[in-house]
Amino acid sequence: MAPARIKSRPKAKRKLKAKKDPARGKIVYFFGGGKAAGRGHMKELLGGKGAGLAEMTNAGLPVPPGFTIATSACRHYFNNGNRLSPTMIQEIARAVVRLEKISGQQLGSTDAPLLVSVRSGAKFSMPGMMDTILNLGLNDQTVDVLSDRSQSPRFAWDCYRRFIQMFGNVVLEIPKEEFDQIFEDAKRSHGAQADTDLDVAALRQVVGEYKALVQRRTEKPFPQNPHKQLSMARDAVFCSWNTARARTYRRMHKIPDDLGTAVNVQLMVFGNLGENSATGVAFTRNPATGDKEFYGEFLLNAQGEDVVAGIRTPLPLSKLARLMPKVYQKLVRIAQRLERHYHDMQDFEFTIQDGKLFMLQTRTGKRTGCAAVKIACDMVREKLISTEDALLRVEPSQLEQLLHPIIDESQPLEVIAKGLPASPGAAVGRVVFTADEAVTQAASGPVILVRKETTPDDIHGMDAAVGILTARGGMTSHAAVVARGMGKCCVAGCEAIQINYEKHEFSASGKTVREGDWISLDGSTGRVILGQAKTIASNPESGEFAKLLRWADQARRLVVRANADIPRDAQVARRFGAEGIGLCRTEHMFLAADRLAHVRAMILADTDEKRRAALAKLLPMQREDFKGLFKVMAGLPVTIRLLDPPLHEFLPQRETLLVEVERLRSEGKTVEMEEKKAVLERVEQLHELNPMLGHRGCRLGITSPEISAMQARAIFEAACEVAAEGVQVIPEIMIPLVSHVRELALQREVVEKVAAEVFAEKKRKVNYSVGTMIELPRAALTAAEIAGEAEFFSFGTNDLTQTTYGLSRDDTGPLIQEYIRLGIFKEDPFQVMDPDGVGELVRMGTERGRRARPKLKVGICGEHGGDPASVEFCHRAGLDYVSCSPYRVPVARLAAAQAAIKEKRGLYEQVSSTA
Amino acid sequence: MAPARIKSRPKAKRKLKAKKDPARGKIVYFFGGGKAAGRGHMKELLGGKGAGLAEMTNAGLPVPPGFTIATSACRHYFNNGNRLSPTMIQEIARAVVRLEKISGQQLGSTDAPLLVSVRSGAKFSMPGMMDTILNLGLNDQTVDVLSDRSQSPRFAWDCYRRFIQMFGNVVLEIPKEEFDQIFEDAKRSHGAQADTDLDVAALRQVVGEYKALVQRRTEKPFPQNPHKQLSMARDAVFCSWNTARARTYRRMHKIPDDLGTAVNVQLMVFGNLGENSATGVAFTRNPATGDKEFYGEFLLNAQGEDVVAGIRTPLPLSKLARLMPKVYQKLVRIAQRLERHYHDMQDFEFTIQDGKLFMLQTRTGKRTGCAAVKIACDMVREKLISTEDALLRVEPSQLEQLLHPIIDESQPLEVIAKGLPASPGAAVGRVVFTADEAVTQAASGPVILVRKETTPDDIHGMDAAVGILTARGGMTSHAAVVARGMGKCCVAGCEAIQINYEKHEFSASGKTVREGDWISLDGSTGRVILGQAKTIASNPESGEFAKLLRWADQARRLVVRANADIPRDAQVARRFGAEGIGLCRTEHMFLAADRLAHVRAMILADTDEKRRAALAKLLPMQREDFKGLFKVMAGLPVTIRLLDPPLHEFLPQRETLLVEVERLRSEGKTVEMEEKKAVLERVEQLHELNPMLGHRGCRLGITSPEISAMQARAIFEAACEVAAEGVQVIPEIMIPLVSHVRELALQREVVEKVAAEVFAEKKRKVNYSVGTMIELPRAALTAAEIAGEAEFFSFGTNDLTQTTYGLSRDDTGPLIQEYIRLGIFKEDPFQVMDPDGVGELVRMGTERGRRARPKLKVGICGEHGGDPASVEFCHRAGLDYVSCSPYRVPVARLAAAQAAIKEKRGLYEQVSSTA
Repeated sequence: MAPARIKSRPKAKRKLKAKKDPARGKIVYFFGGGKAAGRGHMKELLGGKGAGLAEMTNAGLPVPPGFTIATSACRHYFNNGNRLSPTMIQEIARAVVRLEKISGQQLGSTDAPLLVSVRSGAKFSMPGMMDTILNLGLNDQTVDVLSDRSQSPRFAWDCYRRFIQMFGNVVLEIPKEEFDQIFEDAKRSHGAQADTDLDVAALRQVVGEYKALVQRRTEKPFPQNPHKQLSMARDAVFCSWNTARARTYRRMHKIPDDLGTAVNVQLMVFGNLGENSATGVAFTRNPATGDKEFYGEFLLNAQGEDVVAGIRTPLPLSKLARLMPKVYQKLVRIAQRLERHYHDMQDFEFTIQDGKLFMLQTRTGKRTGCAAVKIACDMVREKLISTEDALLRVEPSQLEQLLHPIIDESQPLEVIAKGLPASPGAAVGRVVFTADEAVTQAASGPVILVRKETTPDDIHGMDAAVGILTARGGMTSHAAVVARGMGKCCVAGCEAIQINYEKHEFSASGKTVREGDWISLDGSTGRVILGQAKTIASNPESGEFAKLLRWADQARRLVVRANADIPRDAQVARRFGAEGIGLCRTEHMFLAADRLAHVRAMILADTDEKRRAALAKLLPMQREDFKGLFKVMAGLPVTIRLLDPPLHEFLPQRETLLVEVERLRSEGKTVEMEEKKAVLERVEQLHELNPMLGHRGCRLGITSPEISAMQARAIFEAACEVAAEGVQVIPEIMIPLVSHVRELALQREVVEKVAAEVFAEKKRKVNYSVGTMIELPRAALTAAEIAGEAEFFSFGTNDLTQTTYGLSRDDTGPLIQEYIRLGIFKEDPFQVMDPDGVGELVRMGTERGRRARPKLKVGICGEHGGDPASVEFCHRAGLDYVSCSPYRVPVARLAAAQAAIKEKRGLYEQVSSTA
Repeated sequence: MAPARIKSRPKAKRKLKAKKDPARGKIVYFFGGGKAAGRGHMKELLGGKGAGLAEMTNAGLPVPPGFTIATSACRHYFNNGNRLSPTMIQEIARAVVRLEKISGQQLGSTDAPLLVSVRSGAKFSMPGMMDTILNLGLNDQTVDVLSDRSQSPRFAWDCYRRFIQMFGNVVLEIPKEEFDQIFEDAKRSHGAQADTDLDVAALRQVVGEYKALVQRRTEKPFPQNPHKQLSMARDAVFCSWNTARARTYRRMHKIPDDLGTAVNVQLMVFGNLGENSATGVAFTRNPATGDKEFYGEFLLNAQGEDVVAGIRTPLPLSKLARLMPKVYQKLVRIAQRLERHYHDMQDFEFTIQDGKLFMLQTRTGKRTGCAAVKIACDMVREKLISTEDALLRVEPSQLEQLLHPIIDESQPLEVIAKGLPASPGAAVGRVVFTADEAVTQAASGPVILVRKETTPDDIHGMDAAVGILTARGGMTSHAAVVARGMGKCCVAGCEAIQINYEKHEFSASGKTVREGDWISLDGSTGRVILGQAKTIASNPESGEFAKLLRWADQARRLVVRANADIPRDAQVARRFGAEGIGLCRTEHMFLAADRLAHVRAMILADTDEKRRAALAKLLPMQREDFKGLFKVMAGLPVTIRLLDPPLHEFLPQRETLLVEVERLRSEGKTVEMEEKKAVLERVEQLHELNPMLGHRGCRLGITSPEISAMQARAIFEAACEVAAEGVQVIPEIMIPLVSHVRELALQREVVEKVAAEVFAEKKRKVNYSVGTMIELPRAALTAAEIAGEAEFFSFGTNDLTQTTYGLSRDDTGPLIQEYIRLGIFKEDPFQVMDPDGVGELVRMGTERGRRARPKLKVGICGEHGGDPASVEFCHRAGLDYVSCSPYRVPVARLAAAQAAIKEKRGLYEQVSSTA
């Protein structure tokens, strides 16, 4: 039975975990000889890798023996001033002895030296974030024993060289570049092309220089005692949990900071023992497309990280079938077993040591949104999982990928290179060559990050870019894995391009592309295209995508609506499954080019008469807008919010006018100056120090009821006219920024009066309702009173977040980023609803409102309406609907289904509450 | 037993009342012949006047018989489409019959016509707001009967003239001016100086013209049927409850709109029957000074409103002692009985009809703050009331009057006139002659409103003015009564001044004072002084004021602190009884002239070094500030808030820079322009669209911990140095604008680190605590978490009101006034704490915070800390202290005592709650 994946709600998790944390219980879980102390479900304690090794061992798969030091030890380590307790140290020592017995080897033995790998393994897979040390146990003595026993001195010294390098970097914190420098120098002086071209003598020399480097940088010799090596490595793994890049990854993936990592100590097996050895990574299905095919890559005579690090471009597994057919067959069978066992697509690592297969890791495979949908649907058809399981298998946010545009094939395309289709979708942007540059340039337009290979240090740049292109690395390279996780287009391993970082350019097919030049990427085919290719929207209505969403619709309780202001957006929304419009912002209609002049005339009017004349000009335009919306949304509710922003938003900018008046004055252009000055005066009158807290929302309608009346008239005239065509119209009129029930009562009065007038004029009635945005704390707190005047509530969580936190969205973007960096905020509260503060008001407002009016319809229409975690919150708070941007509608549909299924299955964590 | 006066919490009252409203019960309460159906405590049902008449009747005082139609009838009238039920109408008719019997007269009888007065009477006294009709029952027939029976045709026709005028104005809504015009014309054509100079023929002519006016304006003859007159008058009284000016008065005095008014119908007695008749108003003690003296005014041969309307300047009661010694003695005895009966100073109306005394009204007398304090203390000494009663007798807000400045007698004063000392205190301002002008001019400086007499239509102008000067009217004239209620300096009845409205000037003692000229008023002596007199603060520490506040200190539970930023303010606060500083705003220290340059240098610093250098310059200055505060507040806690406002507040204005750069550019001054431009660039960087929701409060300290560290260092160094002098220092460090507990935790870390450093350096420890402002809704909602890091909470209700309502104080002043006008807000939520929204957060924050940390100290430091109703709220919410501006400290001390006494006496109304 596959456990459901729950990734969000890190907070609640943390609390739960803290309770059952057995701080002083068993911390070492042994595996080997066909038996393991741990189990596959113990990810929290053993980490994903440790749990996988235990599960595979128990399942009888060929796993090298070893043991896992549990995450509880890591937490103890941090809480105990970075030390383990003596009991824990003893427990680990006993496990080493057991490993020595089972392997017939001993740490530091000059007969049969035990060599181990030391790897981190947290609950959630964090590719490339945690550090690994291989070949631990080697020292100046045991390297010779390895050399003798393997009958390959080159192999032994290469292992030692790698070990010192990894240990030196990870444990002793010596920059990797310093080791690389020595190694590259050695290659050059020996005229070596590939790493493997270096002979034993050269490798011995490299080892000597590595050791000298360690002595120089740490003022101590490289530690020769393998027990010391092991304890140092263990602590370094613990500490790697807290590196800046691990923190960044966790923040991006919403993994709590206090889970801690497990440490896996495992007997080494060697994929670099010669041409009959190999190491590789495989997926039980294609992680990019979801196709049911055994899929992976390997490198002959290579060790560990060589495959995923993207340094050498690996071979497809099909090659292995030819080179080692038996091993390949065994791998295929194991893959099938794994998938049947886990009921999900697996991503596993293997090593072939001298023709013998060993499994080193298995985990749920990351996949693109497209693959996730396909695999989920296929597995239902294969009866591996239920439709509900399938719904839980797709990250809702991944669905947006499927809606991303693809390259329009009808245009002539200048394809200059082709790489691996590592993450699908199309991306068009300007070329940048560093992560920092990507961040800087992204502010002024889309960028594509072009790198030889990416490393975890590039993540911020990958995040900023619309697409990623690498010259090296395979489908499982860092770039590919991370890009897929981000739902970002990526072409990897594109060896046809030559990158020159210094000149800020790359070349391919004889063309030179400089920094700032436009290119387009096709992540589904791997094509690199010169210039700005045209793209077209994908068609989400067909195939598995539509099937999955149909299942979602059956499972969910929440209604999903869209925020759409114009008929075109409403059309898109309806195509994506929106069940109505939850928010139509009428101010967008005011800003249209043909309207703005009348809007300004209305604002600048110095008599009631002029104001009414301007409003009269706007009326027919607004009416046509609403008619369009009503027609597109035939039979579905359309929530129209009356004018919300402060009026000065429709006037010329104050600063510009100030400077212009001064300029005209200095130029002696008195007439023009006086004209400008008159406008400036009105702008000054309307100027506010804090417009967000100023004269806006229903406050406009209350001081200028004629504006509300005009809008209501436009709505009701449109409704009557469309209804006359036989279309079912369900208008819902929403009064914004209510803080006191009497504001709503007054605006309601205006709306009802106009409705009665229009219905009399048109000799036709249309059912409508009047409700309000709940977007101020006071509205939520006094929801019981407000519900007396409102038939529906729509939580405007953008504004509600602003006032609850006292944070202006317009001003505090960088501050919020800084807060996330400092760990004050786990995530941007404008993206993911804060469950403790804003959420508390949503719960309170809903409950109090419903207590006063049991049939009150309650929804949400802020940005959060399309965020999966926030949708889950809304489901749990008992809301009736969420409303989000059209492209997020499928996301919300799936998230709503997952919330309902989790509720049914009792998968919710306890809600954290400050109450 | 005197009932405690409770004026605030109109909301809760309304709810309570609605419950026990006997909508269909008895509505008529008869009084007369020594017996009354009503009782003195039935103010809610009978209104103050009706209850007083019933109480006086039952006490055997000479009250003309009559009946009261209860407020429940008025509410029924409004809820029933402005009609009474037939049962009610019958009940009233029966009362009329009974009055006819007891008086031996009949409505409309040509033998003995019954004449009555019809007066309003609401629960709370509303001087001048409600309308009165005298002599009802007169018509073309009965006027002759009255003429015969009184043997004074002039009297009869003057009564009829007055009746038509009052009825025409109040019931038929014909502007008073139109009647006045006819009357003035008659006086002129008859060469009459005073009203009394008109003879019968002239009055007959006036009556004829009045009736013609009524016919012209209403297209109907003046109603001749006295029953019809009575029902019309009754309904007009009901309706007068809802006039704009009545609403304004209620809003200003926080009286709920839905109480309704009673109607008193009473047999007429006549003070205008000749020189042996009179009418007057008296107080049992002096309402201006509180002196225990029988005090009042009367007019011989006058009727009803003549005294209070201020049209003729009345005579002091001492004159009555000489003119009618027996009646005067009877009056004195009645006054003593009234005070013993009511245990409070009474304000009563009487009429002497042909040598016979009648009591027409008694009510608790309005008084100045000074008189309130003196009367309360005197009555305790006289054992009339307890100290607790005394505390409930003084409106806390009145105390501020006692702290107002008085004229400095050491300067030469050019006194140009002397009027009545109607309301004490000194006022210095520019002269205006209309209420509207007062409002307009008050925006640019203090104004003094100068009027011949004031009317209820002038209230907005009186509110805007700092002082009021009238040429006519006595100590009980409209101007005097209202000014005392407002705690505003007033000189009334200053007949020495000649006002010329048309020329916008007045003259006195040969001087002409024009609109806009400065004058000074001494409300305690009645002097009118040319120019701007110097004033000095009064001394609140001595006498009864201090005694009352000592009683208050014994009664209250809430601690009262002051908001003070500099030692001088702290000194004032301590003198007024502050028990610590609840809020020291350190930014005020930053803005001092000698600091600003360093503050700017710190902000504009482009290197850490420069910034540290600037901070180092600020450190010793801040330290001296704190030393001063600690010394003044020896032994008392001093809460210091770290820097709060956004940094751009310390830089030159963006708009100014924008214009200057443009000017310098056009003038070709490139060097200067570039300089300005550099500053502008930094200002632009710091510019925020909504600074109130921007980078301020603890957000500054988090992104620039060096600022917090500098401030903490200044505080701890100052504390250690002052403690070294043997002074007890209790610093409380307050972190502003916390929305998330982790912000507080980070800032606390900075503070604690500096504290440890300073204590080590100074080899001395000082106890301190760290707490936070609760000024954002999220802080209140997550108070349980925040209390984990805070030793105290201080509710910053200014900011909390802004974010809870989404209303910027800087921008929405006029909007709030409009909201009050429209009845959306009952009062300005920035002045009186909103109990339903903001108050809910205060309750919630306190409760959640204390649940997590039972010993959490909780206070409030917004403007509301000095508002009596808000202080009561804080008491009831269980806060530990309130902190307010120094001059409000006595107000808060008394308000806190009243809250505690009310609680003890079970006088609280149910709290309205939306929960």
